[in-house]
Amino acid sequence: MATFTRFETFDVRFPTSRELDGSDAMNPDPDYSAAYLVIGTDADDGLTGHGFAFTIGRGNDVQVAAIDALAGHVLGRDVEQALGDMGATWKSFIDDSQLRWLGPEKGVMHMAISAVVNALWDLKAKRAGLPLWDLLGRMSPEELVALVDFRYLTDALTPTQALELLRAAEPGRAQRRQELLDGGFPAYTTTPGWLGYSDDKLVRLAEQAVAEGFGQIKLKVGADVHDDVRRMRLARAAVGPDVRIAVDANQRWDVAPAVEWITALAPYDPWWVEEPTSPDDVLGHAAIRRAVAPVKIATGEHVQNRIVFKQLLQAGSLDVLQIDAARVAGVNENVAILLLAAKFGVPVCPHAGGVGLCELVQHLSMFDFVAVAGSRKDRVVEYVDHLHEHFVDPVRLEGGNYLPPTAPGSSAEIRPESLQHHLFPAGAAWSGVPSARSAAGGLEELVDEQVAG
Amino acid sequence: MATFTRFETFDVRFPTSRELDGSDAMNPDPDYSAAYLVIGTDADDGLTGHGFAFTIGRGNDVQVAAIDALAGHVLGRDVEQALGDMGATWKSFIDDSQLRWLGPEKGVMHMAISAVVNALWDLKAKRAGLPLWDLLGRMSPEELVALVDFRYLTDALTPTQALELLRAAEPGRAQRRQELLDGGFPAYTTTPGWLGYSDDKLVRLAEQAVAEGFGQIKLKVGADVHDDVRRMRLARAAVGPDVRIAVDANQRWDVAPAVEWITALAPYDPWWVEEPTSPDDVLGHAAIRRAVAPVKIATGEHVQNRIVFKQLLQAGSLDVLQIDAARVAGVNENVAILLLAAKFGVPVCPHAGGVGLCELVQHLSMFDFVAVAGSRKDRVVEYVDHLHEHFVDPVRLEGGNYLPPTAPGSSAEIRPESLQHHLFPAGAAWSGVPSARSAAGGLEELVDEQVAG
Repeated sequence: MATFTRFETFDVRFPTSRELDGSDAMNPDPDYSAAYLVIGTDADDGLTGHGFAFTIGRGNDVQVAAIDALAGHVLGRDVEQALGDMGATWKSFIDDSQLRWLGPEKGVMHMAISAVVNALWDLKAKRAGLPLWDLLGRMSPEELVALVDFRYLTDALTPTQALELLRAAEPGRAQRRQELLDGGFPAYTTTPGWLGYSDDKLVRLAEQAVAEGFGQIKLKVGADVHDDVRRMRLARAAVGPDVRIAVDANQRWDVAPAVEWITALAPYDPWWVEEPTSPDDVLGHAAIRRAVAPVKIATGEHVQNRIVFKQLLQAGSLDVLQIDAARVAGVNENVAILLLAAKFGVPVCPHAGGVGLCELVQHLSMFDFVAVAGSRKDRVVEYVDHLHEHFVDPVRLEGGNYLPPTAPGSSAEIRPESLQHHLFPAGAAWSGVPSARSAAGGLEELVDEQVAG
Repeated sequence: MATFTRFETFDVRFPTSRELDGSDAMNPDPDYSAAYLVIGTDADDGLTGHGFAFTIGRGNDVQVAAIDALAGHVLGRDVEQALGDMGATWKSFIDDSQLRWLGPEKGVMHMAISAVVNALWDLKAKRAGLPLWDLLGRMSPEELVALVDFRYLTDALTPTQALELLRAAEPGRAQRRQELLDGGFPAYTTTPGWLGYSDDKLVRLAEQAVAEGFGQIKLKVGADVHDDVRRMRLARAAVGPDVRIAVDANQRWDVAPAVEWITALAPYDPWWVEEPTSPDDVLGHAAIRRAVAPVKIATGEHVQNRIVFKQLLQAGSLDVLQIDAARVAGVNENVAILLLAAKFGVPVCPHAGGVGLCELVQHLSMFDFVAVAGSRKDRVVEYVDHLHEHFVDPVRLEGGNYLPPTAPGSSAEIRPESLQHHLFPAGAAWSGVPSARSAAGGLEELVDEQVAG
């Protein structure tokens, strides 16, 4: 019998704001960061599980503290038992009534549960000798349903309905698994579209994306409507009429301004408009969608949990549902969300980028294709060409498609030397950097310098 | 010119789980806690501002870390400028784009902002020599509107509409202020109704509440429907037909079970049913309310921010809106929520209890009466007879009414000796207590002992 003996957290930050990579209307200067967790056991196999919550700099220490608050729920626990019933294990984190008060099921504490749950799945997949997508794709409908907490979902999806969905998709699994191994899963790229980039850089990167085989790109919008119309026009000219261009407002608008802005961009045929308003605003999204149809509305990277996703689907708020691998409470809750999306017939196109989010979320889309939705039509996983070199099993793109990972695990493991180099504030990546960078105060000046420089 | 020179946090926990005070269907063993903040300046007046986030035990350290993450936004700042434009000051916390990622505007990070914002208001009121309710009640409609961030609200409430509301209530302010000083503000008591109490204790405390002048009591429900029907019947017999009995399910139900359970309780005339389901479930609350009308639906203590409150009002999800003083981002956001409630004509009946929540939230209801809603009809502030002795300016109840505080400030200040005594884990209140109490693991046994004992 093995028990968990290691629960170690790391405050890892990448100084991405130096190049304005990842800049958008809401997040002008992110330092992509991970509140990173390694769990280990006293088993002879020496395997470790890796998970993380993604943040954009300041507050990553708070996120680490939240993960640490869960250590007592893991250390000393029986490994086979915990990994053997991941539904019960998931609930043991969610049902800590004292910690629940800090959410419930949202924000820092929920993302902390995500890190722990995903680290357990990483370990479980490594022990099975399978990549996570394939581990999930081999589980029976009954086993998958047992992963899901249906609390607060049963007015939209019952366990019985979920089981029916999964059983209906079962006969095609083997064939789709083979299609995936042969052709991969479609990606789209956000690399050309960051708000901090010049027009020239935008056009150059958009053309490059098409040359690389991407069928969809994405532009950040929302700071200035005239700039956005110009950038959209330039991008459309660069990629031609057949490549899809999604735009992403990162929550900048209220309902009425969203409708005006989207109407201004509509002549350039945006494929979807992402995060037009607050991720909390189910009814606001629904109102915007009604007003701008047939332009598609997408959201989800900041949606806090399955309960809000349920309502977005019930209210007809979206055309495209965007899961994030590490904001809701990990694999289990994302399985619930994939099932909800399938029930409502809405395609899932995950958010990714940041650090490690592409590595992690590709597994969920591939599982969705194999065992839940059963289709790649209009499904794409976001791709951003940042920071993959820091991962042990980085994503592999070919002709605009993610190739399925073959290494056991969830691909979330950061290389040991990268981890050490980017520890905050002691790592070499942060030496000589003004401490103001990821601390409050003095920040505006630094950003101004960069924008000017 | 004064600047902020002190930003000191404390992990304060009260071992309330020893007596099962505060036990309900979702929170069987809370240790009422405060992530407590004291801010100070280099001004000659020596005044300090006090604020806190309320938690129920484990994770209070995470909450403290989140408040600490905001220190750089306060220390060194000009005091007159910060307190003189509290609207801009509020936005400076909310608009930290890196910290925003941790929510946005929800959970641990948002409650941390609450503590800081409320500490600033405490200081501002002390400097003005006024209790908070009176300071707010003397501000002009223009000044009040300037406190509010209307982002994501304008589809339901614009600044112009808010101004009209406040101006309409202006003529009656002086008279209502006097009525408040003369008669106080109605309270209701949750003291009889905790789930861990025996039937005898319930009946005795219910009779005592009526004798003390309360016109409304509240029972916790949601663990077992047969128990709840019996307890409701006993309580109704004890208080007679004219005293209102609210029931509180603390989020235990999905939509269909909520409807069944409420239907079973309906013969005993519940005044409202509180938190029937997830606080995130706007549409679920609306469905339940439609099904059980005319039984009233109440919620809000766990509602994360003004955006969700807006939707609860838009969707017709509630009859009673329950603000909490320290879950949304402090006074400013609660002013926004009071304005929304007034716009939709829904009475505000705050959640209180815990530690310090009665002290703090009474100010907001009194301000609501004086300057926003302009009425006490069907408005009551929750009262729980716990832990008031630890406050410098504790609530005063008379004949079932809160008497308006007269001391300058927000009444949030904990007595220094109480603070020291309850520091976790070093304070005397925690010496000799098994460390398992507020740490994960071993907890069930302790609770079992207590329930048995």
